[in-house]
Amino acid sequence: MTHHHHPCRLVLASGSPRRIAMLKQLGLTFDVRPASVDESALPDEAPEVHVLRLARSKAETVLHQLTPQTGSGHVVLAADTIVAIDGRILGKPLDREDALAMLSRLSGRSHAVMTGYCILDSVGRKREDAVTTKVTFKHLRPIEVEGYLDSGEWTDKAGAYGIQGLASFMVSAVQGSYTNVVGLPLSHVIEALWDLEAVTRVPNVPSNVRS
Amino acid sequence: MTHHHHPCRLVLASGSPRRIAMLKQLGLTFDVRPASVDESALPDEAPEVHVLRLARSKAETVLHQLTPQTGSGHVVLAADTIVAIDGRILGKPLDREDALAMLSRLSGRSHAVMTGYCILDSVGRKREDAVTTKVTFKHLRPIEVEGYLDSGEWTDKAGAYGIQGLASFMVSAVQGSYTNVVGLPLSHVIEALWDLEAVTRVPNVPSNVRS
Repeated sequence: MTHHHHPCRLVLASGSPRRIAMLKQLGLTFDVRPASVDESALPDEAPEVHVLRLARSKAETVLHQLTPQTGSGHVVLAADTIVAIDGRILGKPLDREDALAMLSRLSGRSHAVMTGYCILDSVGRKREDAVTTKVTFKHLRPIEVEGYLDSGEWTDKAGAYGIQGLASFMVSAVQGSYTNVVGLPLSHVIEALWDLEAVTRVPNVPSNVRS
Repeated sequence: MTHHHHPCRLVLASGSPRRIAMLKQLGLTFDVRPASVDESALPDEAPEVHVLRLARSKAETVLHQLTPQTGSGHVVLAADTIVAIDGRILGKPLDREDALAMLSRLSGRSHAVMTGYCILDSVGRKREDAVTTKVTFKHLRPIEVEGYLDSGEWTDKAGAYGIQGLASFMVSAVQGSYTNVVGLPLSHVIEALWDLEAVTRVPNVPSNVRS
């Protein structure tokens, strides 16, 4: 009898539909266990420090929930994404007016999108980083902002826009990881997952099951 | 009786599923009329010159087909996208072996993706440009290349990869327009369409019809 390597179970500590979609698209198998942590920033906390602290806190929370139940064999991936401009963090807009203010601020300028990710496994290993991408918006026409606000896409998005959605035409340039703006710096995360032996095949989508 | 402005009819001179999807996502209404032109490069033709010549040729071909039928009121958008590295143009791979050679060449390095677009209307106006985006690949593991080749995604893609698909994790950084790599520099094209009065509302997706 040969020994089969039993891969550990990957757990995504996030309920973000974009993060789930990005990992699913690659054919990865994983559980989804959103972590609920206090997301408020500490006084004078730098954005990079903030996203990394939240990612770490989410990963630790979920790992602690899992370990007593099922013992070892878990790898938990958590992330937090923010938009930063003019020394302030733009979170999810409160309402349409707040979204309008955010889009007006982003129009015709560059801002930073930062994602902190943290990967913890049940034998105590950790891989984490904060990745920054510079995003440049074209000058937005009032009718474009109005059309975008009418779409409702801004509702659950940091900075009031989704780069992979209807806001795609607003972004004239990106500098850095594109998937980082969507919510997960995929090339970094996949390398870290290889490193922790948390994946065995990427991408894992045979031709015959694709449309 | 008030006078209603009758907008011209937008025609996409391309059958590319990615270009169609990007414009549809914004809620634009357009006809699809792929243009068939000789896509071979001229001797010593620079990549930027090449993509712009092809885009212009496609737009002219389709505009000439349309004008006798239906008179004025058309705006034709055409584009051509190529991948350039080491002074050579990578087109669509001939077979799996060719795709393997292309991905091996792109691994761990930067290359250029160029899209030429040309917009012509029936009153003789023209907006055109060639846009370049720098794309950096992470170092690809042999098992990643194998998994990607097995997916079949490379089949109809210049350079043997689709940045919006399974190859998303291979791209560690982008410098410039992301949608340009997908096949159409959206922010540039939308600005040109406004300029030619070829659109009246962008995006045009009311909240209640979105999932």
